[in-house]
Amino acid sequence: MTIQGAEFASPGKWHLAHTTWFFEEFFLNSFAGYVKKSEAYHFFFNSYYETVGARQQQGLRGLITRPSLAEVMEYRQAINEAVAKKLDDGVSGELEAVIELGLHHEQQHQELFLTDILYNLSLNPLFPAYRQPPKKPIVQTAAVLSTMVAFAGGLESIGHAGGGFGFDNEFPQHQEYLQPYRLSSHLVTNADWVAFINDGGYRNPLLWLSDGWKTVQTENWQMPLYWVVRDGYQTMTLDGLQEIDPDAPVTHISYFEADAYARWAGKRLPTEAEWEVAARPQKIAGNFANTELYRPIAADGNGLEPLKQIYGDVWEWTASPYCAYPGFRTSAGAIGEYNGKFMNGQYVLRGGSCVTPQDHIRLTYRNFFYPHQRWQFTGLRLAEDAR
Amino acid sequence: MTIQGAEFASPGKWHLAHTTWFFEEFFLNSFAGYVKKSEAYHFFFNSYYETVGARQQQGLRGLITRPSLAEVMEYRQAINEAVAKKLDDGVSGELEAVIELGLHHEQQHQELFLTDILYNLSLNPLFPAYRQPPKKPIVQTAAVLSTMVAFAGGLESIGHAGGGFGFDNEFPQHQEYLQPYRLSSHLVTNADWVAFINDGGYRNPLLWLSDGWKTVQTENWQMPLYWVVRDGYQTMTLDGLQEIDPDAPVTHISYFEADAYARWAGKRLPTEAEWEVAARPQKIAGNFANTELYRPIAADGNGLEPLKQIYGDVWEWTASPYCAYPGFRTSAGAIGEYNGKFMNGQYVLRGGSCVTPQDHIRLTYRNFFYPHQRWQFTGLRLAEDAR
Amino acid sequence: MTIQGAEFASPGKWHLAHTTWFFEEFFLNSFAGYVKKSEAYHFFFNSYYETVGARQQQGLRGLITRPSLAEVMEYRQAINEAVAKKLDDGVSGELEAVIELGLHHEQQHQELFLTDILYNLSLNPLFPAYRQPPKKPIVQTAAVLSTMVAFAGGLESIGHAGGGFGFDNEFPQHQEYLQPYRLSSHLVTNADWVAFINDGGYRNPLLWLSDGWKTVQTENWQMPLYWVVRDGYQTMTLDGLQEIDPDAPVTHISYFEADAYARWAGKRLPTEAEWEVAARPQKIAGNFANTELYRPIAADGNGLEPLKQIYGDVWEWTASPYCAYPGFRTSAGAIGEYNGKFMNGQYVLRGGSCVTPQDHIRLTYRNFFYPHQRWQFTGLRLAEDAR
Amino acid sequence: MTIQGAEFASPGKWHLAHTTWFFEEFFLNSFAGYVKKSEAYHFFFNSYYETVGARQQQGLRGLITRPSLAEVMEYRQAINEAVAKKLDDGVSGELEAVIELGLHHEQQHQELFLTDILYNLSLNPLFPAYRQPPKKPIVQTAAVLSTMVAFAGGLESIGHAGGGFGFDNEFPQHQEYLQPYRLSSHLVTNADWVAFINDGGYRNPLLWLSDGWKTVQTENWQMPLYWVVRDGYQTMTLDGLQEIDPDAPVTHISYFEADAYARWAGKRLPTEAEWEVAARPQKIAGNFANTELYRPIAADGNGLEPLKQIYGDVWEWTASPYCAYPGFRTSAGAIGEYNGKFMNGQYVLRGGSCVTPQDHIRLTYRNFFYPHQRWQFTGLRLAEDAR
Repeated sequence: MTIQGAEFASPGKWHLAHTTWFFEEFFLNSFAGYVKKSEAYHFFFNSYYETVGARQQQGLRGLITRPSLAEVMEYRQAINEAVAKKLDDGVSGELEAVIELGLHHEQQHQELFLTDILYNLSLNPLFPAYRQPPKKPIVQTAAVLSTMVAFAGGLESIGHAGGGFGFDNEFPQHQEYLQPYRLSSHLVTNADWVAFINDGGYRNPLLWLSDGWKTVQTENWQMPLYWVVRDGYQTMTLDGLQEIDPDAPVTHISYFEADAYARWAGKRLPTEAEWEVAARPQKIAGNFANTELYRPIAADGNGLEPLKQIYGDVWEWTASPYCAYPGFRTSAGAIGEYNGKFMNGQYVLRGGSCVTPQDHIRLTYRNFFYPHQRWQFTGLRLAEDAR
Repeated sequence: MTIQGAEFASPGKWHLAHTTWFFEEFFLNSFAGYVKKSEAYHFFFNSYYETVGARQQQGLRGLITRPSLAEVMEYRQAINEAVAKKLDDGVSGELEAVIELGLHHEQQHQELFLTDILYNLSLNPLFPAYRQPPKKPIVQTAAVLSTMVAFAGGLESIGHAGGGFGFDNEFPQHQEYLQPYRLSSHLVTNADWVAFINDGGYRNPLLWLSDGWKTVQTENWQMPLYWVVRDGYQTMTLDGLQEIDPDAPVTHISYFEADAYARWAGKRLPTEAEWEVAARPQKIAGNFANTELYRPIAADGNGLEPLKQIYGDVWEWTASPYCAYPGFRTSAGAIGEYNGKFMNGQYVLRGGSCVTPQDHIRLTYRNFFYPHQRWQFTGLRLAEDAR
Repeated sequence: MTIQGAEFASPGKWHLAHTTWFFEEFFLNSFAGYVKKSEAYHFFFNSYYETVGARQQQGLRGLITRPSLAEVMEYRQAINEAVAKKLDDGVSGELEAVIELGLHHEQQHQELFLTDILYNLSLNPLFPAYRQPPKKPIVQTAAVLSTMVAFAGGLESIGHAGGGFGFDNEFPQHQEYLQPYRLSSHLVTNADWVAFINDGGYRNPLLWLSDGWKTVQTENWQMPLYWVVRDGYQTMTLDGLQEIDPDAPVTHISYFEADAYARWAGKRLPTEAEWEVAARPQKIAGNFANTELYRPIAADGNGLEPLKQIYGDVWEWTASPYCAYPGFRTSAGAIGEYNGKFMNGQYVLRGGSCVTPQDHIRLTYRNFFYPHQRWQFTGLRLAEDAR
Repeated sequence: MTIQGAEFASPGKWHLAHTTWFFEEFFLNSFAGYVKKSEAYHFFFNSYYETVGARQQQGLRGLITRPSLAEVMEYRQAINEAVAKKLDDGVSGELEAVIELGLHHEQQHQELFLTDILYNLSLNPLFPAYRQPPKKPIVQTAAVLSTMVAFAGGLESIGHAGGGFGFDNEFPQHQEYLQPYRLSSHLVTNADWVAFINDGGYRNPLLWLSDGWKTVQTENWQMPLYWVVRDGYQTMTLDGLQEIDPDAPVTHISYFEADAYARWAGKRLPTEAEWEVAARPQKIAGNFANTELYRPIAADGNGLEPLKQIYGDVWEWTASPYCAYPGFRTSAGAIGEYNGKFMNGQYVLRGGSCVTPQDHIRLTYRNFFYPHQRWQFTGLRLAEDAR
């Protein structure tokens, strides 16, 4: 709960405290006369809000020996009680919106809590499991046969239409013009990925973006993050080291790898608009954190929808850089730092993963990571032009 | 001609040899029995083509003591003569296309030749001039009064329609849907930028993208590249240290700075499609390298077009990440490494600059640099939604 | 017990396990048929012995989430019991020597345990104390008046004469010729150091070794490690943040700082031979870990010996690079890696500190650290030529 | 003459200007009313004198495009003439001493001029020669048979006795007590070194100092600097790529390598006092720069002295860290920065090399480099205790 194996992988204790700090800073602190529980907590557990003061450097969160976990849990309880009391008394619509945002914010950190624990445990050569015994998925019997499904394109409405919660980056709804395209019915699997490895995918510079090839060489990438070679490929999971399932979606791959794979396969990655149009008819259901499997699983080949695994399992890399939609407006105040300032150098991912809370996801939900990052449950679906 | 002050600023001697190497490698070398002039030159002067073999690391180009400049000039003459002889004999259309590409490639390096010399000279506290005496621009008398010019948006054709040369990244022409928007009639000036500095623009994190703010702090940015404070602001130019002209467009700014300025001004940067639609009616003319001024100058306020300085003076940063157009296809062979593999993490710039050859530029021309880079002649025009 | 704030500051848990590993590896493992308790422990808790296999990188010791502290304590108990049983059965003189070495090795880590905890806690802006409440030293009433005490020099025997334990680096005893010299009767105090700071000591390059001046600038040194400015100087200690005692010896200074201070004072540092000759008449007593004060204290001005504080309080930097004595021999086997391979770039320190076990110290004991290191309890005594 | 392949390898142009700057700064500038030729030159060509102002960073000397080589040569001539005129007029003894120091300083840079050119040319895969054709040494016919020569030790006078020029670090003469020892009659040869390589010398951590082993791994050392494998070992020299001579002394090795070799051979490196005592009877003659061979050559086996190659050929690494002699005093003023501030982390080398001017060397001359440095003409002679 305390260590931090890399700048991006915050300690569990920090996630627990930071999500509570959010409610204290942006909700409780807006009441006149409120006195913060601790200036030190304020310093430690602010993530990146420049507006509200100095903070512990992100890369040093693993050095927070005090407060202890017990103290953090007390902090959570005290703030939760104070918030509940205020809500019982009744608050303005503006403050209700802060609570709603805080809940969605906490759901994001529930996912990071699991992905960061996985990363931090993966650095231990004992490959310790997060839990015992592992939860077993139902084994699929039908073979995975991915096909390309066609979409007509044309002028489409993209983004959040209003009426219900959404992050600022999903607004406003606007029109985009799409060329005809096709998407693969299934996610790329571990078996597919082994074929890519065996064909020299990690050794052929012509498959890679220039920045990606530099990363392959610098980091000596030869397979997805967490894979190790032991009588075949195994992979570190929240259940410890496990054999890979050939039919399950590949995960813990970077954008650079997803893009190289697609080029190797003679395809490309979908844009986020293509994904959103294709996903619109489907209901939001799938292998989310609620299944408690915490790993992507092979698709059930007998489903009725045209696209399998569109929600859950893995975040799907899209070809779309993370940008403002036309007409995007930043919120006022510190809350306005929420998403806009990260709109550089990252790519959009869609659909949620096996560690995402199911009710956190929407059709228009935009996740985003840098193209070299692999510690999230990230995978890919293929696309191509339909001409 | 030999030194390299940073990885991105290649020596003049290298540019001269590399552009000739391009013709040797991709044109002469395609004839059966051709023997390359020198394996060492092949190693030294390949820039980034993985397909054609190992090469001098980019950051070490400044260590190429041999061949000497005289030897490089002999190399240029020998290759030019051999190419001319082949052309006299008549070649295939495919090889004619290689020659055309090679000429456009050399024009790109003509611009880099000047920008890199400027950078390399700027590191010398003597501020040496590239030439003596400086060429004087005609002084403008009319005041610069920028206004916002409206455009209706809608479904527009973007990209190269075919019929004439274009780089692969300009194809194919395709439709995009634009919201109504406005662009500033003039480029942002040095006087504008001084106002931004004086208002604390470089010290306010809320104006900046997160990655940009990190760069401001790491690099201690306080003003555009090449500016120094000596009885007011002066700037390093190819004519040595010169006073800044308040009415001339600001230049040598990064995307991060352009974006922060636009936010400070309550505006935003234009997308490349918005720029292209607005520029379409204008003829390609302006302060290009052909004027031999080699610096941006104040706009002539009495022109007839609605948008001033749309071509020449400075490359205009757009809000558009550098991506493949829908339907983009890479060329076959090593030539296919030309543009596609750089489509990550960079932004598109439009319109050419005061060191760009005039006949190198097209309406659909897409230049691209990383958001932290400032050594090119880069500037900005403002945009906003029209609602 | 788990975190590691810098490569040099190992977690408490690691020290506890490593010292036990030493007995398992070099004692128990020498018995035929012995099976190691855990290959993983062997990997984690080897410090630097190349001969006995691969190991956790030193800088990553803070990522050892498993084994837990409880498991480490069980490991300690199991190994201790196994060792005790073997000793009861009787072992060879060679193995008895391994036990003796292991005990001295563990004493070294008892000291590091405290110095590393201090470092790791110091990174927390709460300045947490290692214990509550602090142990109070007896306040000194006599003023500290340091004088220079003369020594005749000449041909002297230096090093361990045999008969009793010593580390390999203390052997063999040999003759060195010393010029006449003087040593200061007292250690340099915090009050002395404040005078150095106030006189611009940290800003005058002429006082510093070239490598030291680079470090001052790179690390922005302005005062000893752990000092902070809060209504005067305070310092982080194992009792939390405390006011500095002007009469107590300055500590947590590097060799570079000690050397610069001596130059500023018109003096120099003593050689280790000068120190040893001067210390020879004194009994080994002082403010060691046994007092449980864990901080250096002001000298009792009324003592009978000519040199105060020669043992305990702080390790005294000497001017002597850490080298082999003439005739030095490395021990056979992995134990031979003990000291010899570190004989480069470090300086010898003498006399032990307030966190050293008293019975760990000998007249001939040679400690050694790099000249930029400051997290040990290090200080200085002045010397000068007597001519 | 302009490039700088590493921080330590200054451009030829810089050496030419810096040695002249020394005379301008410390001689001419001491005359009232003297006006420096150029403030910029003063900035560019100060090496490390903190006392006399700011300067070009050492690592950026390769960016000095202006002044040109022609301008530097004019600078040299102008200063030389001005100095000569002052000397004709007659100057104080103090200023005469500055001139003498300046001449010895320039001799040091004559050596660096050649070693730095060799380094800078070595980075070019064309392996260009400094001159054409190479000068041929007389081939030795006698076999090299190194023996160990005994010395009695005892109390010896070490260092410069006065009467004639010496650098500050050679003073004062003082007594040291030496144990009996033996030195090898010849330097270690290339054939010896190949045996070390073939025996896995670069792969056995037990042969190396801890810091040395880290360097071997970080730098991937497998053979001396400049050696390449091409039908056997070849080496870059000032005459371009040449086959190695098995009987010639090995050179371009670090202290770490010399120390590891000695341990492999069951010997050790000599101390500088041991070397000085052994060299005292010999006349100063050997393969210095004056032979214009610029490479070490095989010893003439028929000489009369007991120790071959004691002067010239290669600088001999000693086991002695570079420290102040007892009673060392720094000179007053900027000249005082000459040697003392470098007394940390380096080792003493003795005897001069094939690129050292012969009349630059004395019995008591102390050269010094860091233990990882290899671009000087460095080699080794073995030692052992005689007991």
